[in-house]
Amino acid sequence: MTRHLHLNAFLMGVGHHEAAWRHPSAEPARLTDVRHYQNLARIAERGKLDSVFLADGLALWGNVRHNALGGLEPLTLLSALAVVTEHVGLIATVSTTYNEPFHVARKFASLDHISRGRAGWNIVTSAGEAEAHNFGIERPPHAERYARATEFLDVVGKLWDSWEDDAVLSDRAGGTYADLGKIHPIEHEGAHFSVRGPLNTSRTPQGRPLLVQAGSSEDGKDFAARHAEAVFTAQQTLGEAREFSIDLRNRLRAYGRRQEELLVLPGISPIIGSTEEEAHRLEKELEDLIIPAYGLSQLATLIGVDLKEDALDKPLPDVGVETEGAQSRRKLVVELARRERLTVRQLLSRLAGGRGHRVVAGTPEQIADELQEWFDYGAADGFNIMPPILPRGLEDFVDHVVPELQARGLFRTEYEGGTLRENYGLTRPSSRYAAEPDRELDVVVAS
Amino acid sequence: MTRHLHLNAFLMGVGHHEAAWRHPSAEPARLTDVRHYQNLARIAERGKLDSVFLADGLALWGNVRHNALGGLEPLTLLSALAVVTEHVGLIATVSTTYNEPFHVARKFASLDHISRGRAGWNIVTSAGEAEAHNFGIERPPHAERYARATEFLDVVGKLWDSWEDDAVLSDRAGGTYADLGKIHPIEHEGAHFSVRGPLNTSRTPQGRPLLVQAGSSEDGKDFAARHAEAVFTAQQTLGEAREFSIDLRNRLRAYGRRQEELLVLPGISPIIGSTEEEAHRLEKELEDLIIPAYGLSQLATLIGVDLKEDALDKPLPDVGVETEGAQSRRKLVVELARRERLTVRQLLSRLAGGRGHRVVAGTPEQIADELQEWFDYGAADGFNIMPPILPRGLEDFVDHVVPELQARGLFRTEYEGGTLRENYGLTRPSSRYAAEPDRELDVVVAS
Ligand SMILES: Cc1cc2nc3c(=O)[nH]c(=O)nc-3n(C[C@H](O)[C@H](O)[C@H](O)COP(=O)(O)O)c2cc1C
Ligand SMILES: Cc1cc2nc3c(=O)[nH]c(=O)nc-3n(C[C@H](O)[C@H](O)[C@H](O)COP(=O)(O)O)c2cc1C
Repeated sequence: MTRHLHLNAFLMGVGHHEAAWRHPSAEPARLTDVRHYQNLARIAERGKLDSVFLADGLALWGNVRHNALGGLEPLTLLSALAVVTEHVGLIATVSTTYNEPFHVARKFASLDHISRGRAGWNIVTSAGEAEAHNFGIERPPHAERYARATEFLDVVGKLWDSWEDDAVLSDRAGGTYADLGKIHPIEHEGAHFSVRGPLNTSRTPQGRPLLVQAGSSEDGKDFAARHAEAVFTAQQTLGEAREFSIDLRNRLRAYGRRQEELLVLPGISPIIGSTEEEAHRLEKELEDLIIPAYGLSQLATLIGVDLKEDALDKPLPDVGVETEGAQSRRKLVVELARRERLTVRQLLSRLAGGRGHRVVAGTPEQIADELQEWFDYGAADGFNIMPPILPRGLEDFVDHVVPELQARGLFRTEYEGGTLRENYGLTRPSSRYAAEPDRELDVVVAS
Repeated sequence: MTRHLHLNAFLMGVGHHEAAWRHPSAEPARLTDVRHYQNLARIAERGKLDSVFLADGLALWGNVRHNALGGLEPLTLLSALAVVTEHVGLIATVSTTYNEPFHVARKFASLDHISRGRAGWNIVTSAGEAEAHNFGIERPPHAERYARATEFLDVVGKLWDSWEDDAVLSDRAGGTYADLGKIHPIEHEGAHFSVRGPLNTSRTPQGRPLLVQAGSSEDGKDFAARHAEAVFTAQQTLGEAREFSIDLRNRLRAYGRRQEELLVLPGISPIIGSTEEEAHRLEKELEDLIIPAYGLSQLATLIGVDLKEDALDKPLPDVGVETEGAQSRRKLVVELARRERLTVRQLLSRLAGGRGHRVVAGTPEQIADELQEWFDYGAADGFNIMPPILPRGLEDFVDHVVPELQARGLFRTEYEGGTLRENYGLTRPSSRYAAEPDRELDVVVAS
């Protein structure tokens, strides 16, 4: 079987470029308009993309004075996209640090039913300090966040399995709706959670959502190797991306998993023009709209250091060794500045397009060349596409880059299956309780 | 202005009657099918109903062996209904006992944007013990649940107000997206919650969702008088319903609220036939499908006492004075059994249709007479319609009872406004921060 690449559309308001909202082709008033996102999902589906993905934070990220922030919560939004599409996967970001496993299991189960098997979860641990303050606590340390995330995954996995595939009999004549021997209390007792179960939403088309992870620290990579079926990652160079992919795959063995069970999808923001000149003109238009004060607030988010405008034309100061925030992105940003000896202003302009993700301007063929090179070289199994302006940039990608990839035999021309897991080439998990001897659920009544 | 009644469609799987799933006209396989619910919402909208409403619990309620349980989470489902309707309100149940205010504020804000102003929240405190065990705690005492609910409402109210109506400027040329003087940290510090804010979803069409409440204990009524704009309630007799309504209204003054700011909507399950005989035949068909073991599990949920089958033909035993569970429903059930000297079996059959809500079988005219009587007599401002079988029972109501109510001048023939608040005749609240002198939001950066 030929290896095909997988493409995810990372949807972000009116575009990934931080100045997109100021560009004449963007419509910032549509930030909270569901039809804007429905349109994006339909475009992605027209291009046979595997999935669309929504990031999320639990506080305002960056300075809303200078960017179009304050949009919709992903899970709520995705079911409105599910009902106007048929094939494209729907991936929502939800934090394990500020949520309860029962709620999260249930909401994804609902989305999986509503979308008939297209739900995916981008599991994050929430790196920001501001997020903690919306939940009455101080941000837990990095390692503690990942420890909680690990137990969280254990609990939601049990809840998704708590109804076996054949639990529902729906025998009207006999009066038996479900077989209580196939609905299992989970009786989880751990360091962070104590959850009796079962879930009160029945087994879903995919069994569980596609599990996606997006932290690239050491703890993040271990977590991904253990649980994730797809990994989103920011990678600046082909060499590092390849190393990252190999590193991640090497960790799979420790958890008894096979190479094919994990896809690595680096982010890329393609600035597309019908000629190189046109692409660079668009890049320049966006660059001219950058507001340094916003870039500085973003930089503070990414590396945890709050610089003032008088630092703009100096090199990035020494930022110390480690934080409890987002380790991998911080490392990437600091290394980028060092490697290319950038001033803070130059660094901000490099980050404006994709917050550390790779930005590539060119013709559809050139973009396809870049994707193919990384794919052939083993640096990527596919990509997280981050259009600078939305919907325009996604339309350009779907109408011009996708056909080029298809012509090269790199990308599907039809969806392989009906579920997100099928299109990502993954199997449907069976319930862990299916093998157990049947034991009757003790009916627990409320109050 | 003539007083009009308000009608809400209480959607419950394939019907409110506990044996609905066994009836030949129900399709239990559609319990997790979003198109089933979309169809119901469209029927409600065809009938110009104010809203549809989804109940919710955080554990399996009752015995899934004998009823079609395990459906979808309401908030996730409602945005899929929002995008196939234009007018009908969308009310989701969410518990204040097992949630965080930041999440709840944000999800309702998202639904309000997605539906363009049609979100409503049925605020519940979760009476069941099983629910607590899915969140690692023991059920908090009744009074403590309402104390938390009160502070919860304070926090979400501040979050919904945290963006003033005119906070977003979207000035592209000047590079100013939002006016930081009009986005407010809430800095809430209380006994249960500490939340900095602001919300990271912008001000919504309704300002905040319609607030609905459904507990009728003393604490519940005080809570409703303080916060609720509509109250769902189970009432068996006209006299008691009228007393309840007067009692609730009398409590409004203490919170500086006016009579028109609260609507009381008792539940009613109408069993509709084109003749009386047909209605009673349907009632009998459903009654013949009742499974006593299921009724007993429901009774345990409602009154907190676990009876065995050998108790069926005896009177309801003494169940003691009070529980920490659902006080008002328990009282209603116990009083019903006493007043009518019912055996447990007879009681179960009285509860099978609506779990304590009133069940009325008859022709469309007779149903309309009942509704009119309660409405005219001041026992109701409208009704929570609980069709025994769905969609059939909702179609019958919309196609036959609604025209009758319209012909009598009791119900609208066109929606009054675009938002749920407008159709309920309520004003749009302004932000509590609008009057405050502008103070710049201190941009809080993540990590
Ligand atoms: C493509 C991509 C998308 C991400 N989306 C989110 C997000 O939506 N919310 C979030 O809190 N973190 C997001 N992250 C950040 C990581 O998930 C992670 O929280 C952060 O990098 C800290 O983890 P680390 O220390 O392991 O790197 C994203 C990262 C990447 C590469
Ligand atoms: C029409 C109606 C719908 C209700 N829906 C729910 C619900 O979905 N979830 C829930 O936990 N309680 C629900 N309740 C119960 C109450 O909200 C409340 O939790 C319970 O009655 C305990 O409150 P009390 O002790 O004040 O009566 C409902 C009550 C009524 C009358």
